[in-house]
Amino acid sequence: MTIAPIHEQAAAAARARQDRLTKPTGALGRLEAIACWFAGRQGVAIPAPLVPHCLLFAGDHGVAVEGVSAYPPAVTAEMVRNFARGGAAINVLARAIGAEVTVVDVGVAADLSDLTAIVHAKVRPGSRNLAREAALTPEEWERAVAVGRRAAAAAIERGATLLLPGEMGIANTTPAAALICHLTGAPAAKVVGYGTGVDEEARGHKQAIVAAAVARAAPLSGEAALAALGGLEIAALAGAFLEAGARGVPAVVDGFIAAAGALAARAVAPGVEEWLVASHCSAEQGHRLALEGLGLSPLFDLGLRLGEGSGAALAVPLLQAALALHREMATFEEAGVSEGV
Amino acid sequence: MTIAPIHEQAAAAARARQDRLTKPTGALGRLEAIACWFAGRQGVAIPAPLVPHCLLFAGDHGVAVEGVSAYPPAVTAEMVRNFARGGAAINVLARAIGAEVTVVDVGVAADLSDLTAIVHAKVRPGSRNLAREAALTPEEWERAVAVGRRAAAAAIERGATLLLPGEMGIANTTPAAALICHLTGAPAAKVVGYGTGVDEEARGHKQAIVAAAVARAAPLSGEAALAALGGLEIAALAGAFLEAGARGVPAVVDGFIAAAGALAARAVAPGVEEWLVASHCSAEQGHRLALEGLGLSPLFDLGLRLGEGSGAALAVPLLQAALALHREMATFEEAGVSEGV
Repeated sequence: MTIAPIHEQAAAAARARQDRLTKPTGALGRLEAIACWFAGRQGVAIPAPLVPHCLLFAGDHGVAVEGVSAYPPAVTAEMVRNFARGGAAINVLARAIGAEVTVVDVGVAADLSDLTAIVHAKVRPGSRNLAREAALTPEEWERAVAVGRRAAAAAIERGATLLLPGEMGIANTTPAAALICHLTGAPAAKVVGYGTGVDEEARGHKQAIVAAAVARAAPLSGEAALAALGGLEIAALAGAFLEAGARGVPAVVDGFIAAAGALAARAVAPGVEEWLVASHCSAEQGHRLALEGLGLSPLFDLGLRLGEGSGAALAVPLLQAALALHREMATFEEAGVSEGV
Repeated sequence: MTIAPIHEQAAAAARARQDRLTKPTGALGRLEAIACWFAGRQGVAIPAPLVPHCLLFAGDHGVAVEGVSAYPPAVTAEMVRNFARGGAAINVLARAIGAEVTVVDVGVAADLSDLTAIVHAKVRPGSRNLAREAALTPEEWERAVAVGRRAAAAAIERGATLLLPGEMGIANTTPAAALICHLTGAPAAKVVGYGTGVDEEARGHKQAIVAAAVARAAPLSGEAALAALGGLEIAALAGAFLEAGARGVPAVVDGFIAAAGALAARAVAPGVEEWLVASHCSAEQGHRLALEGLGLSPLFDLGLRLGEGSGAALAVPLLQAALALHREMATFEEAGVSEGV
């Protein structure tokens, strides 16, 4: 798979424009770098406003039977119904930024066939229990990656210029932690956190499960290891990031789970991270490690730990503001403002 | 002056609602606290969307002749003309959030009488040089505070429910640093920074000026000390915050200068900080100290150091998102979603 090249010349032209805008050089901090980054992705000195699109992948996890989550597995399917009705956090945030939401059942362990407003692409009804066996076969992992790629491609073909991949899957901080350990080399003690809110004892149990699974997967080759530790919605996230990189459309990395998906994408296609922006650093331990593994620096830390792409959606007004400033501010010449010494 | 009381019952009702929304308890991090905070300010369990209004106070500073800024003093007036034409950063950001901008000349050292789109309330054409004498008389300080109060009152009477006070004034990080030193007790070495971008030598000179001015003002009583160290637009910022607190309308604290104005307001009317939200932590050294002095925690740190209220405006989409989530998300009952253990 080939990752689209960056337009360095457009980024440099944007940098030159930033230095002519009526503000002290560098006074807009990271917003200046964001504008130049998007110039390099869109290939123009003055990037157009972003058309964001939320991709929401849902899947279940066999490891939920181990008591690693504060919520029962039924909540995955219940929340998909909530997404379909527009009542979840991501629906509210998507409305606020004018983004469409595509909900994809890539592996929910329940019959959702009555829902007409979602994409039905169930690879299997949840992953196997990674505490006992490989969560997925390499072929299942690949099929779920392909689901993510197709969803991203469809969004791009409908006009999206910024993808916001998110997820829902009770117990999915466990496979995400396992993938992050496997892909960064960090120990389980530094990556496993409290997820949606388990207690200290459950966290210890979760940590032992992750450490054992990572050890079991260590001898496996590339995708076999990802499949053994992963989950269907995480594979789909990886696919969405891969498609973004292949087509040259930026994507925002949401929370801990999305960062695991992005790391998995980079393991397959190094360079894909050049097309990614990190939104936030969550309350989940290990998120910062995962972002460092991607070479990404988050824009804010509001203690979020919801998933769904919620942090990614919250970042969009900041990104749009950076581009609006770049596009609309007067230059020193236009405004007749004196320059600094 | 009396500060409006907080509606604790409404805040508690909002907290109860947050715990019924379809997300793990606390998963929206600071956004949950923001929604409850606004409930306590608006006096209703479900706060209404915010109507933001930018107040932009401009003034000059006698201390500019000491070479404490990287920009010539003429830039203050030039930027006011840029604000009036809509070409500055705050104009772009205000458009993005649907906010009106009121530009107030409270002390620009230039004739701006040809501008019809701004409020003319010049107390004097710039402050005196605080390196040599008191920057303002107590009476001048008071008059500038009153300008800020009137501007805030007018915005509130036009329907604003969130004030975004900002400023423009070449060299104003010097008086702001002096006020922050005076009001927090922090030494000049920890508060004085690089402003719009002076070099290390100029910063050292600025630090010596601030330390000497703070020492000279130490024996003065309340407002006399604020006047000796302050600037006209900083006094107006203080006035805007005071009016916000008196009328019970929240205001967002922007950067280093705005934080100095908020500290000055609190020195006059303790409790006013209960009506303030901190937007960002800027690149300017001492900003964090000033926010700590106010008991406020910033929402993000993007390395901004522009002023104009730009950080305050950037915070508005996050605040609106917090309220939209609180207002629009389904509860567990409404969505038929199971709860955690």
